[in-house]
Amino acid sequence: MSKSLALEDVTTAGCCAPLSGPQLSEQEAAELAKVFKALADPVRLRLLNLIASQEGGEACVCDLTGPFDLTAPTISHHLKVLRQAGLITGERRGTWVYYRVIPEALTRLSGLFALSAFVDA
Amino acid sequence: MSKSLALEDVTTAGCCAPLSGPQLSEQEAAELAKVFKALADPVRLRLLNLIASQEGGEACVCDLTGPFDLTAPTISHHLKVLRQAGLITGERRGTWVYYRVIPEALTRLSGLFALSAFVDA
Repeated sequence: MSKSLALEDVTTAGCCAPLSGPQLSEQEAAELAKVFKALADPVRLRLLNLIASQEGGEACVCDLTGPFDLTAPTISHHLKVLRQAGLITGERRGTWVYYRVIPEALTRLSGLFALSAFVDA
Repeated sequence: MSKSLALEDVTTAGCCAPLSGPQLSEQEAAELAKVFKALADPVRLRLLNLIASQEGGEACVCDLTGPFDLTAPTISHHLKVLRQAGLITGERRGTWVYYRVIPEALTRLSGLFALSAFVDA
């Protein structure tokens, strides 16, 4: 119940038109291309996967460097790119920054690739 | 070789696991990053949108150059990138090539961003 309501809300806001739906404007396409550029990196995809799969939906930056053979500044750079693309938020609490995915951003992308319009056609 | 090999590999490895689900392997992340690189271009996103939204799901290349202020070879290049990423197929019939999206590829991406695992958590 609650989850379909939430999705409906986002959908009626007009954010989640599928690629098989209305024409993307040049501006919408440019904005989406920026998001996909942020996703077009294996380390950033794995970071997003790690954050999204944490129990409670939140990951401490202190847990995000271990899985990679990369320096902390490099990981921080990738997290910044994901933040700037509107895919995650970061909140400093004490020593560490804690990251969460932005559900609306993922829902929008999921809706973009949804195939319902094919089925209805 | 098959032009959709990359996405097929990912798909058979675990078809529509969400980012909030199991950990992506380095190889899965690398394959997905290639797909997002193909999507990280406004013209390619608009081409995919045009193809996906055609009645019957099929677009003649002859209808894909008009909406853009680009040369036919440039459009062909972008279509080739989408084909190589496993997002569309192209079939020559007579004078023209006809393009379709690959539904499994879009479903895979839609599932990647699906939020069910957040709601269930």
